Amino acid sequence: MRSDVTAADALRIILEHTPVLGAETVAVPEALGRVLAEPITSTRRIPPTDNSAMDGYAVRRADLAEAGSTPVELPVAHEIAAGGRAEQPLEPGTCARIFTGAPIPPGVDAVVRQEDVERRGDRVAFAGTPAPRENIRPAGEDVEHGEAVFAAGERVGPAHLGMLAALGRAFVAVRQHPRVAILSGGDELVEPDGDVAGGRIVASNSYSIAAQCRELGAEPVYLGIARDEPDDIERRLAAGLSADVLVSSAGVSVGDRDYVRGVLEKLGCRLHFWGVRIKPGYPLTFGTFEDPAGRGPLVFGLPGNPVSAMMTFEQFARPALRRMTGHARLHRPLVRAVLSETLSKSAGRLHFVRVSLEREGERVLARPTGSQSSGVLRSMALATGLLIFPAEATELAAGEPVQVQLLDESFLDADAAGF
Amino acid sequence: MRSDVTAADALRIILEHTPVLGAETVAVPEALGRVLAEPITSTRRIPPTDNSAMDGYAVRRADLAEAGSTPVELPVAHEIAAGGRAEQPLEPGTCARIFTGAPIPPGVDAVVRQEDVERRGDRVAFAGTPAPRENIRPAGEDVEHGEAVFAAGERVGPAHLGMLAALGRAFVAVRQHPRVAILSGGDELVEPDGDVAGGRIVASNSYSIAAQCRELGAEPVYLGIARDEPDDIERRLAAGLSADVLVSSAGVSVGDRDYVRGVLEKLGCRLHFWGVRIKPGYPLTFGTFEDPAGRGPLVFGLPGNPVSAMMTFEQFARPALRRMTGHARLHRPLVRAVLSETLSKSAGRLHFVRVSLEREGERVLARPTGSQSSGVLRSMALATGLLIFPAEATELAAGEPVQVQLLDESFLDADAAGF
Repeated sequence: MRSDVTAADALRIILEHTPVLGAETVAVPEALGRVLAEPITSTRRIPPTDNSAMDGYAVRRADLAEAGSTPVELPVAHEIAAGGRAEQPLEPGTCARIFTGAPIPPGVDAVVRQEDVERRGDRVAFAGTPAPRENIRPAGEDVEHGEAVFAAGERVGPAHLGMLAALGRAFVAVRQHPRVAILSGGDELVEPDGDVAGGRIVASNSYSIAAQCRELGAEPVYLGIARDEPDDIERRLAAGLSADVLVSSAGVSVGDRDYVRGVLEKLGCRLHFWGVRIKPGYPLTFGTFEDPAGRGPLVFGLPGNPVSAMMTFEQFARPALRRMTGHARLHRPLVRAVLSETLSKSAGRLHFVRVSLEREGERVLARPTGSQSSGVLRSMALATGLLIFPAEATELAAGEPVQVQLLDESFLDADAAGF
Repeated sequence: MRSDVTAADALRIILEHTPVLGAETVAVPEALGRVLAEPITSTRRIPPTDNSAMDGYAVRRADLAEAGSTPVELPVAHEIAAGGRAEQPLEPGTCARIFTGAPIPPGVDAVVRQEDVERRGDRVAFAGTPAPRENIRPAGEDVEHGEAVFAAGERVGPAHLGMLAALGRAFVAVRQHPRVAILSGGDELVEPDGDVAGGRIVASNSYSIAAQCRELGAEPVYLGIARDEPDDIERRLAAGLSADVLVSSAGVSVGDRDYVRGVLEKLGCRLHFWGVRIKPGYPLTFGTFEDPAGRGPLVFGLPGNPVSAMMTFEQFARPALRRMTGHARLHRPLVRAVLSETLSKSAGRLHFVRVSLEREGERVLARPTGSQSSGVLRSMALATGLLIFPAEATELAAGEPVQVQLLDESFLDADAAGF
């Protein structure tokens, strides 16, 4: 096992061991936001027939060749509603009332909008000759039978769902979403409704990490709070081995009471590194199960401090979960910002600085959200971005351009529609 | 009722009639992504006690005043685990084994990291004097009892959930999410498993609009397919009157078979406008119920073409739903892009052009995704953005800078972590 690795090495090692999950078949509405695991080929023509783009009158253009300053009158022979059949041909010298979406009958080569004619009882006066196929939408305009519609790997958005429904699909194959088993560990921890007398604290990391999972489309599975004793830890970790990812918060350190590492190794987990040169979040470990059948979860042993746990999940577990889910781009948007105040640190570890982002004309200002202690969750909640303070840098001056990972994409939302 | 309004007027009229919804109380994990409807004040001190930031040894600094090239040895008097109590004071001339998160006992004024000492049986050798309160995290570092933690109006992210859990909260007040009743109308429509012989088509708009709702956090309620007859339309629309928003796709036009408008007015709906100078999506109508008690949904009568329905929902219903949900910024991010090819149109209507966005070095290229017909849903599915082609403009030249609404925020995701 390596120790004291760089952030870039840690991420590389993790992604080298991260598979893309298999496919599963879900009902079409459930596919929203998932990644297509099959190419979609059209099994029908959409629209199925030539149809009217307007409410108006279906005509044979030849009948209106003479229409101009002297209108041409035609009798209304019949009416074609949307959903009706269009088997009855239009007889020469007549027109037919037609509605938007209604099929075009044999013989018809144009539709004249109702606003452009004068209805006189059961006859209609036309004041001009329409262009060929005017207001006729061709069959197969959207897709033809047998045509490739969507590629595997596309993210399923609302229009994809509409198209799948239009194709008559009830089910579709998408990438599985990862199941993430989450364990908290420590004798000082209680559930939110627990008694906090005597210095006990709530196992809040399970809540924040579960929420980080759900924002990604991953499914959190809670393993509860393990006491600081190997048997309890082993029993709970074993219950998480069927998950795709196992996240333990606290308990993977060098303290005498940190039994998680030993239990993981006993269960067959190979740890790849311990300790990443970042702050907050140094005591991160990562492991895999070397099952010849390829089973067993990726294991992230996160530090116990509230911010360290969220930060290491964000930086290292999130990209892995995105890869598992089939996404091509694994990382947060990067925003170029200028720093509101000078920051300094010693060389050696990369710092992720919690910042709020504000627009100032064309530039974006990054302002630290308060105490950067790994125990101060509030400054994490207020952060819209994480500023990257590189490992070997010792000072970032006020006004200097900096790179910020965008945590809260709503920062990009606009105050106006743009029209 | 006004007709033939501009896009900006339509949006203004809609937002003038859009309320922010009330609050509801949900279990903390369900608050993810919602908007806080109450300010959160801390009911406890976090962390509750001074505690150790490291695994190491708790000391009285005075005992180590002489430590230097000659180490000072102290006996280990007792051990303080996380979750233990810290009532037993540290006797002068002794040290205590302490673990990360464990409470600091009376008398202790520093913690020395275990890496920095030498353990000799039941004694520990210290090679220096720690700084005052070194490795001690103060009680209340994150929040003090009675302190304001979050403001009403903040979006609840993972760190908010962690903090709420840490405060022992089981429930929290958030803005209600809007319920959106969705009706499809037309004799030509069938459900996805229906028979499409004879030119019938699937009522796919319900699927795409329901998905647009769900991406916003709104709850779709499906009213089914109304046949082109007033009784069926009225029965179904009436079932949607308890929703916050009522969306009807198709049936609000000027055709003889378009009964929806009449039924809405009969039910007490006041229509504010019909027809917006945009393409696709001209035949949009918007109404409200003038109930003195303020009840009754906002009503959007969307055009029936698949792209027109999605586009008008996107441009006009989405901002209203975001306002209802309590969001401050109502609109999609706007991206400045350059156009891949020259586009032209006649003056009078604003066009929303479906484009895919591609990075080209520092600039973003906007490329139309194919046919812009209002029946071609595939070009909507492929679109990552909607280019705004202003109403009075007649040409946008290749290479010209254009304004694009960003539909798919994953376009911004990065290929690399930034470190």
